[in-house]
Amino acid sequence: MNEKSTLLGVLGGLGPMSTVYFCELLIARTRAERDADHIDMLISNRATTPDRTAFILGQSTDDPLPVMREETRRLTSAGADLLVIPCNTAHYFYDGLKETCRLPILNIIEETGAFLHRAGAKTIGLLATDGTVLSRSYDKICQKYGMTCITPDPDGQKTVMSIIYDAVKQNKPVDRAAFLRVANSLLDRGAERLVLGCTELSLLNKETHLDPAVFVDSLEVLAYRTILACGKEPIGFPEGFASGKEV
Amino acid sequence: MNEKSTLLGVLGGLGPMSTVYFCELLIARTRAERDADHIDMLISNRATTPDRTAFILGQSTDDPLPVMREETRRLTSAGADLLVIPCNTAHYFYDGLKETCRLPILNIIEETGAFLHRAGAKTIGLLATDGTVLSRSYDKICQKYGMTCITPDPDGQKTVMSIIYDAVKQNKPVDRAAFLRVANSLLDRGAERLVLGCTELSLLNKETHLDPAVFVDSLEVLAYRTILACGKEPIGFPEGFASGKEV
Repeated sequence: MNEKSTLLGVLGGLGPMSTVYFCELLIARTRAERDADHIDMLISNRATTPDRTAFILGQSTDDPLPVMREETRRLTSAGADLLVIPCNTAHYFYDGLKETCRLPILNIIEETGAFLHRAGAKTIGLLATDGTVLSRSYDKICQKYGMTCITPDPDGQKTVMSIIYDAVKQNKPVDRAAFLRVANSLLDRGAERLVLGCTELSLLNKETHLDPAVFVDSLEVLAYRTILACGKEPIGFPEGFASGKEV
Repeated sequence: MNEKSTLLGVLGGLGPMSTVYFCELLIARTRAERDADHIDMLISNRATTPDRTAFILGQSTDDPLPVMREETRRLTSAGADLLVIPCNTAHYFYDGLKETCRLPILNIIEETGAFLHRAGAKTIGLLATDGTVLSRSYDKICQKYGMTCITPDPDGQKTVMSIIYDAVKQNKPVDRAAFLRVANSLLDRGAERLVLGCTELSLLNKETHLDPAVFVDSLEVLAYRTILACGKEPIGFPEGFASGKEV
């Protein structure tokens, strides 16, 4: 890389399609008139990383952390300056990754929490994998900002998991009505904003354009912060996205 | 990587969005029921590679070859088993890259030429950058298979270049009618099939679904061959794509 440009390392494949969508967001939302105005990236799309949720839930002993560490080493020794992980569930392993990685790693959960705080939310509803829910990563960031995090009831959570694993990850149609029923039940219970806290749900958002006055897409927040961190100008985000006071 | 899986190295960023679309095609068109069924990839999306067409045309002395060589080294030392370059114009530098690269590199122009031959084409019309037209890379592959390659007249070629550089690369709307006028002029002059011989035109195809009975998308051909080369099963390609006798 020349001296001026940052090489962004993307620890991806978790899952593969949401990694690609994250990169698409970075490119579509960076002000650019020619190829060279875009962010230089090195993307590890390691699809064969053991399933994160299965490990967190104790359903599998196949630990993804060593594989994710191998990928951070690969990206670091290949010259990356800054890392980003476009997957919420994988942030369960964030501290473990930081232990062996000297590069800064943008944290999707920290960034989304800070965004919700700036937006003035007090109660948020979390739509995420069982792994993310069980790891309480969003609870922790909400606590930091004096916010409350609520999650779907067991049936609702099953619906969310089925949408992520049986539909999006298999490139099959999503039961949007079932998804909105779960979302509405969180709003009925007092959530002011709903977090798409799984990047597979960002793919659902891409396809069906969920209402940005209600849904906060963690992948979009991460893309915004990444573009800034790489010294580029973000474009095409909702009005007031920078301050979190959008819509 | 574990012993069974191939690590695909993608020499990308030429341009950045078509690299992302290539990866999207690989994922969407590989038979998979879970993340781990997909191809492991390492993608160098080096947007700041000097402009290929400007160098080929002598409008710039900024040679992209050293940068592309640096990226093949980066991918090779990071563990890639096989390389692919989702850009037609960059294949002007293919022989130069092979000189310093020990890995196999799938060749988009070879693969597209072989596809057209299997499809029984005798005369093809090329829609590509000035760089690709001037480098005569498609003429050479056509010669090998006894086919004739025709290109747009100077005004038509200007239209194609403007669509690639002033619209697609800047994420602006494409004048589809102007594009189809150039395409039709090639059909009127005897072309049986038209090659989308620039991966920025593959992005136009993605958005507007050009008729696959007429247009052969070089990026789609490369995706098909790449999925096979990585030991996976391609799905969702047009009927008969394997034999080239589709539609």
